[in-house]
Amino acid sequence: MQITLEHVDDLARGAAILGTGGGGDPYIGSLMLRQALQDGHRVDLVDVESLGDDDFAVPFAMMGAPTVIVEKIPNGAEMVAALRTTERYVGEKAKAVLCAEIGGLNALLPLVLGARCGLPVVDGDGMGRAFPQLQMITYNIFGVPAAPMIMADEYSNTVLIESDHALEVERLGRNMVVAMGGATNICLYPMHGRDAKRSMVRGTISLALGLGRTIREARRASNDPFVRLLEYLRTTPYYQHCRVLFEGKTVDLLRETKNGWAMGEVVLEGTGGCLGRRCTVRFQNEHLVAREGERVLAIVPDLIAILDAATAEPITTEALKYGQRVAVVGISAAPIMRSPEALAVFGPQAFGLEDPFVPLERISV
Amino acid sequence: MQITLEHVDDLARGAAILGTGGGGDPYIGSLMLRQALQDGHRVDLVDVESLGDDDFAVPFAMMGAPTVIVEKIPNGAEMVAALRTTERYVGEKAKAVLCAEIGGLNALLPLVLGARCGLPVVDGDGMGRAFPQLQMITYNIFGVPAAPMIMADEYSNTVLIESDHALEVERLGRNMVVAMGGATNICLYPMHGRDAKRSMVRGTISLALGLGRTIREARRASNDPFVRLLEYLRTTPYYQHCRVLFEGKTVDLLRETKNGWAMGEVVLEGTGGCLGRRCTVRFQNEHLVAREGERVLAIVPDLIAILDAATAEPITTEALKYGQRVAVVGISAAPIMRSPEALAVFGPQAFGLEDPFVPLERISV
Repeated sequence: MQITLEHVDDLARGAAILGTGGGGDPYIGSLMLRQALQDGHRVDLVDVESLGDDDFAVPFAMMGAPTVIVEKIPNGAEMVAALRTTERYVGEKAKAVLCAEIGGLNALLPLVLGARCGLPVVDGDGMGRAFPQLQMITYNIFGVPAAPMIMADEYSNTVLIESDHALEVERLGRNMVVAMGGATNICLYPMHGRDAKRSMVRGTISLALGLGRTIREARRASNDPFVRLLEYLRTTPYYQHCRVLFEGKTVDLLRETKNGWAMGEVVLEGTGGCLGRRCTVRFQNEHLVAREGERVLAIVPDLIAILDAATAEPITTEALKYGQRVAVVGISAAPIMRSPEALAVFGPQAFGLEDPFVPLERISV
Repeated sequence: MQITLEHVDDLARGAAILGTGGGGDPYIGSLMLRQALQDGHRVDLVDVESLGDDDFAVPFAMMGAPTVIVEKIPNGAEMVAALRTTERYVGEKAKAVLCAEIGGLNALLPLVLGARCGLPVVDGDGMGRAFPQLQMITYNIFGVPAAPMIMADEYSNTVLIESDHALEVERLGRNMVVAMGGATNICLYPMHGRDAKRSMVRGTISLALGLGRTIREARRASNDPFVRLLEYLRTTPYYQHCRVLFEGKTVDLLRETKNGWAMGEVVLEGTGGCLGRRCTVRFQNEHLVAREGERVLAIVPDLIAILDAATAEPITTEALKYGQRVAVVGISAAPIMRSPEALAVFGPQAFGLEDPFVPLERISV
């Protein structure tokens, strides 16, 4: 499948939903992808099975605080530099670009890189959503080494990190991101086709496209976009458990850019059917847990998206502000993301939460 | 000339004087060098003219706060890993190890690395003393690129930094040193023989050996070690201007480990001929300026060493404590270190001092 201009907005909207508040606002990514396509570059979305077992493939992402990414716009050369440095260091030419994180900006940037370098992009990612740390990825859970990680900033500085431990790559890299101004371009988990096939959350770029398209078409047909969105999700293999958790107005917001992340929480006062109730959503780049009082409504790694109550347009954590009318939607994570091994890496305890993981479909309404 | 066990203590003592309080306590380096020699390794000290113009040569150093280095002892494998990663990345095998900084620990470690890898060490360095930042080096002043810089820590993590600007290598590297626990092993300014010949402060390892030997022999002959030390310095090509600036007792000390450096100042109350007077020495890893009231007694890049008043044993900033009886010695820096280009990089203003540089020999006593 070829990605064309008509896909850009749908993909950006769908990626923002899967970003669960984080992953960076896809707006800048959509401008970059549009520009690359208008410049005559072509990019193909391919199935992971089309990769040869020995084909070298490199995931690309932006690392850093979404609050910074919206203000510090890439010039486009850094991402190519990151890929070329990876190829030179590993000593292999990339046959495809992989997506590390389908949530937010990072869903679009691999397509920009693929377009600029004439490489296909594989349909899938390593999170099935967005996460704030580098080790929180199926590539790591299935034993693909995170290193070498290459970081390239807008001043043509390049940093390469080698470590046997994904957590060390995260720790050293996070520190470097702060020194690089809070956001930077990375290639990491460079791998071969055989590893991509066994470690990828498949089909998530198509899923993001489908989500975005569903909302657009619902609006055009004057249908309730939430009804259509939930219907669509229920047809997917991974994300079939979903519901509107809360409807309300944002009445309080704490947001800090700290240690390279956007940290905080938003408080909602119920409207409509939720009148008289309050909901709090805590986030570290991404939404971690939605609570009503002490009661958990949904918790990481299940997805928690905050959408505009009228249009179902997703709202990222850095775009939250007082007085927005929103709906909070909970979506079940892919089974690959809920295994004990996966929960050990990105379950609630990995974020310092005390609540155990309870699958969305087992939380009574 | 072959470096043998009998040289180790002399070299460590001389290097501590040239370290002007910083460069790391050479004690750990002397233990490591002694061990390497006792293990049967051999290391030759060679003149830079013995390098072929195309011979690849790699400077090695520890980067970080001396206060950390005395507590976080290298296991020895990191330094070899740093060199091997440099060779692999640049694609050339090293023919020699270079010294970046003759002051302190960093005078001995290149010899340890040379011994462990069977490579000669070139007699000279890039500072003729110690400095707290990576761009403060003649290699930079003569246009040798600082990058690629390779950092290797005790957990087998490796970080490689590429940048066209030595200041960026310093800034990104300093940040990474903090993440690596405050001190780490680095290879930087990898170069060829032709560049070493034009950018090196020559003969400084021999000089450190001579300084250390002079003090040892003076003690054994019951001569005044200060008299002998100054006599010896006056026979050297670069360091002939020298004098005791102050004698006193340490009565106050402020020392913080901050941003990867040991920062602070020590206050001395005069003894002997200095009775009734006070002297303050400010430092950032190394001593920057010695003052009596507002009057400057000596200032960076000239060398300021604090020595035990009885034995002339050098005292590093991290070993300063209340009640020590000391003498402060000022020594003129090599002419290559006092050019306008050099002063722009490591003159007083590079450390945020307002006082202009005045050569020691032009400061009236």
